[in-house]
Amino acid sequence: MTEYFTEDASVAAVNDRMAVGINPRVREVMTCLVKNLHAFVKEARITQEEWEFAIRFLTETGKICSDERQEFILLSDTLGVSMLVDAINNRREEGATENTVLGPFHVADAPRREMGDCITLDGKGESCVFEGKVVDLNGVPVEGASIDVWSDNAEGYYDVQQPGVQPRWNNRGIFTTGADGSYRFVGIKPVSYPIPDDGPVGKMLNQLGRHPYRPAHMHYIVTALGFQKVVTHTFVGDDRYLSSDAVFGVKATLIAPYEWIGDNRAIWRSSFDFVLNPV
Amino acid sequence: MTEYFTEDASVAAVNDRMAVGINPRVREVMTCLVKNLHAFVKEARITQEEWEFAIRFLTETGKICSDERQEFILLSDTLGVSMLVDAINNRREEGATENTVLGPFHVADAPRREMGDCITLDGKGESCVFEGKVVDLNGVPVEGASIDVWSDNAEGYYDVQQPGVQPRWNNRGIFTTGADGSYRFVGIKPVSYPIPDDGPVGKMLNQLGRHPYRPAHMHYIVTALGFQKVVTHTFVGDDRYLSSDAVFGVKATLIAPYEWIGDNRAIWRSSFDFVLNPV
Ligand SMILES: [Cu+2]
Ligand SMILES: [Fe+3]
Ligand SMILES: [Fe+3]
Repeated sequence: MTEYFTEDASVAAVNDRMAVGINPRVREVMTCLVKNLHAFVKEARITQEEWEFAIRFLTETGKICSDERQEFILLSDTLGVSMLVDAINNRREEGATENTVLGPFHVADAPRREMGDCITLDGKGESCVFEGKVVDLNGVPVEGASIDVWSDNAEGYYDVQQPGVQPRWNNRGIFTTGADGSYRFVGIKPVSYPIPDDGPVGKMLNQLGRHPYRPAHMHYIVTALGFQKVVTHTFVGDDRYLSSDAVFGVKATLIAPYEWIGDNRAIWRSSFDFVLNPV
Repeated sequence: MTEYFTEDASVAAVNDRMAVGINPRVREVMTCLVKNLHAFVKEARITQEEWEFAIRFLTETGKICSDERQEFILLSDTLGVSMLVDAINNRREEGATENTVLGPFHVADAPRREMGDCITLDGKGESCVFEGKVVDLNGVPVEGASIDVWSDNAEGYYDVQQPGVQPRWNNRGIFTTGADGSYRFVGIKPVSYPIPDDGPVGKMLNQLGRHPYRPAHMHYIVTALGFQKVVTHTFVGDDRYLSSDAVFGVKATLIAPYEWIGDNRAIWRSSFDFVLNPV
């Protein structure tokens, strides 16, 4: 216990100040935060000017946040923190479908569709059949699984980014598996798009020599009674940004094939099976 | 080099993404930040709900910032980061007067006063003579040193917090030492005051079982040609918050005596010598 602050004992000076009887998890998290935050400042030997820059950066990041924009989530995403939190909290059996980031464009309560339906309402893009099965770790089909899907349109925007331009619920839908666990719907081959880069996070990426693009992906939330919820994407295997996703969302197991089929219904076919982990 | 993000190699996944040829200091600081930030998330095993809480906390902290309020500086202060940055960047010879936090209430270009002048313009509080010398490490008086001083009033507010209530420049002034290096002015014995605690940082302190008070102090910036600038306070030695300063500003060497003198000029006397380190 140090009575006054010193550089050497800075962590103890702060952490010993927490009162007896506070929430133990608050104590645990804050103790760990102070330890690692001070370690960063000491290791990097942050100057007064750099500290002032950081204060300005955080303030601007807060100021740009609105109902439509969450710059702190972007910051977390681009520093790999969102993926890390997801990974820590969703460790699964080998072979189970892995999670990736939810992203900011999910909308609850999308329209329920029939298997085989088309979710693309603006008529743009290269049509693609998405199909596969929802199974458990033993390969047994899961009946009644809900598959909530969403993607950008052919120009790289989600419907919610272009209200009045795209039809509402464009490239979105919820499907429910039957007894064979299979799913099938028609959408478009998604395209890569940049995360919003006209704010502080965009400036940071620029300083780091990083681009703001995400490789093309289809979003999925797969839920079924008795199984862990899967929040994931499938990625288009030949995308040029696959190994440089601005938010680190790509996992090798989530890269899906896109075969050229060119029949009268669709140009592409992407097959992917979801393997659910029991709760 | 990992191609895709994994929990184990999360730091490398992010840091290996920085481009060749970026500013080396940007690389150094960001590499260190990502390392310590991921270490924190892993050690504390941050949950999805805690992550969401943190995003909201940071957003609210940004939203409450204004020209008059800097909540991120308060956050830095209350987590000991401001003092740590100050300590790292102002290491001095043993015996030289130590720095402490600047605080948010300094105003540049206060009125220049004559030695012996009174800086208290509202007539409130217990008057106190502040006196001492500015010397170098060998005890030789420093002529022409500038001493910029400021304190709260008897009710715990700085003039800038109460425009229209307190006279402008109340409890502020700049003095210049003569050949003997001595200084002397009359102000009030400062009083303890809370940092703004009606925002996110106040809520955090509450969760940690900490109060928002700072022990009573007189602020000083002492500058002289050829010497390091000293940004510091002297603390009133018998203050009840001395060992629990909300911003960790107290150092043992900065606690000053306050003697009761009760003459016709002032009730208290506080003597303190400033020892300057050469640049
Ligand atoms: Cu830790
Ligand atoms: Fe997306
Ligand atoms: Fe103060």
